[in-house]
Amino acid sequence: MDDPVLLTGAGGNVGEAILGGIGDEYDWRLMFHSPPADEPDHEYLVGDVTDDETVQAAVDGVSAIIHLAGDPRPSAPWKSVLSNNIDGTQKMYEAAVEHDVERFVYASSNHAVGAYETDERTPEMYRPNDEFRLDGTELPRPGNLYGVSKATGEVLGRYYHDEHGIKVCNVRIGNLTEGHPPIDYERGQAMWLSYRDCAHLHECTLEADYDFEIVYGISDNERKYYSLERAKDVLGYEPMDNSAEWDGDERVDAN
Amino acid sequence: MDDPVLLTGAGGNVGEAILGGIGDEYDWRLMFHSPPADEPDHEYLVGDVTDDETVQAAVDGVSAIIHLAGDPRPSAPWKSVLSNNIDGTQKMYEAAVEHDVERFVYASSNHAVGAYETDERTPEMYRPNDEFRLDGTELPRPGNLYGVSKATGEVLGRYYHDEHGIKVCNVRIGNLTEGHPPIDYERGQAMWLSYRDCAHLHECTLEADYDFEIVYGISDNERKYYSLERAKDVLGYEPMDNSAEWDGDERVDAN
Repeated sequence: MDDPVLLTGAGGNVGEAILGGIGDEYDWRLMFHSPPADEPDHEYLVGDVTDDETVQAAVDGVSAIIHLAGDPRPSAPWKSVLSNNIDGTQKMYEAAVEHDVERFVYASSNHAVGAYETDERTPEMYRPNDEFRLDGTELPRPGNLYGVSKATGEVLGRYYHDEHGIKVCNVRIGNLTEGHPPIDYERGQAMWLSYRDCAHLHECTLEADYDFEIVYGISDNERKYYSLERAKDVLGYEPMDNSAEWDGDERVDAN
Repeated sequence: MDDPVLLTGAGGNVGEAILGGIGDEYDWRLMFHSPPADEPDHEYLVGDVTDDETVQAAVDGVSAIIHLAGDPRPSAPWKSVLSNNIDGTQKMYEAAVEHDVERFVYASSNHAVGAYETDERTPEMYRPNDEFRLDGTELPRPGNLYGVSKATGEVLGRYYHDEHGIKVCNVRIGNLTEGHPPIDYERGQAMWLSYRDCAHLHECTLEADYDFEIVYGISDNERKYYSLERAKDVLGYEPMDNSAEWDGDERVDAN
């Protein structure tokens, strides 16, 4: 791509994983909510996704958007997710179609489907031999209002794709950690996403050909209950990590 | 039910159909957005769904809510549906769980899935022998921002059901008309909902036993592309009307 790729929410850990892995592969424009502590290596701006002027300036001239910005707290109050996540995402989409942006990658979340983890299914569903799988075709089932806002972001993408033709990929991001997977936390190990898999997956979302997708963003964990089929088939995602290769903070089965 | 049933958006045509058909069957509390022209036959209040005090007063002491209020225009701007439909519905659910309301019937819309009506499928899908069916298990696919807001209302219901146990029924209402079905409008005939079927369906949503449902609210039209299976099986819905029984504004095949 010749035109820059806009990365919103660039100060968060997903942004850090992406820039750490594929920071040299694209011409980035970063959008931060607060001024970054260190001078970024890329063009950047600071502002709020609910502010029209900032959004216009951010989107003008980019070929693609990776939209990570929003209130990332699973316990965030309704007022905040309504404004930052729902309204902010709509504003970003509206600007994207106005500026003929080709593709929009949306950071959805495991919380959009968190309530599938019922008392009857857990903890068995977090274990290697359990066959329960979510594959992105299921209806949203959020476990909190943050998850409601993420499911709404996906629906906004469906609308903007259908109505305006923009390519949309929703990535239901799992439990992203740098280094080792979560310790003593079966659920986190099941939905672990390593930094390098996160970066590679987002590179796939910028390169692959698709119309509208909902994929799960996790490593190829033995414990997984999210299917990686769409991500592999449509995006060409080839995850390198698996939480089963770790014992606590030590890698025991090197890749 | 001994406690009243709250009907919001009581001044609209869905409210009119419900009250016209089952107005005598329940102890109603009506909520209007603007003062009604004629004195209602039931207890009522006037106010906005985004106003906390009005919502608290409306919900206190009711056994069930039929939530019709919101901006009903398919072309409504984002700002309006964000506030009136999305935020208003969340406020109503929040009050419902706070006041231990047993069930919440939500007026969703055919517009939550309007973009399934693609150029390739139409107009064939509106015709009697076409086999395309939506049944409520498909992902939302709104054709406008109003539809996005309705899909979000459904997801809010999923969350409040899963988290708080309130019974939730989402009714994707079709094309409601009093008297004859739409004329020279195949789509409208396919998703026609007669006034009496509308009233009966809503009675079913107040009486049946269910957890969380998404059903289509249409008459038993020969042209239909919405399945009535869930409404019939779970709610006991027995529609009496069918747009094929009409030739323009005349009933030709009386029921």
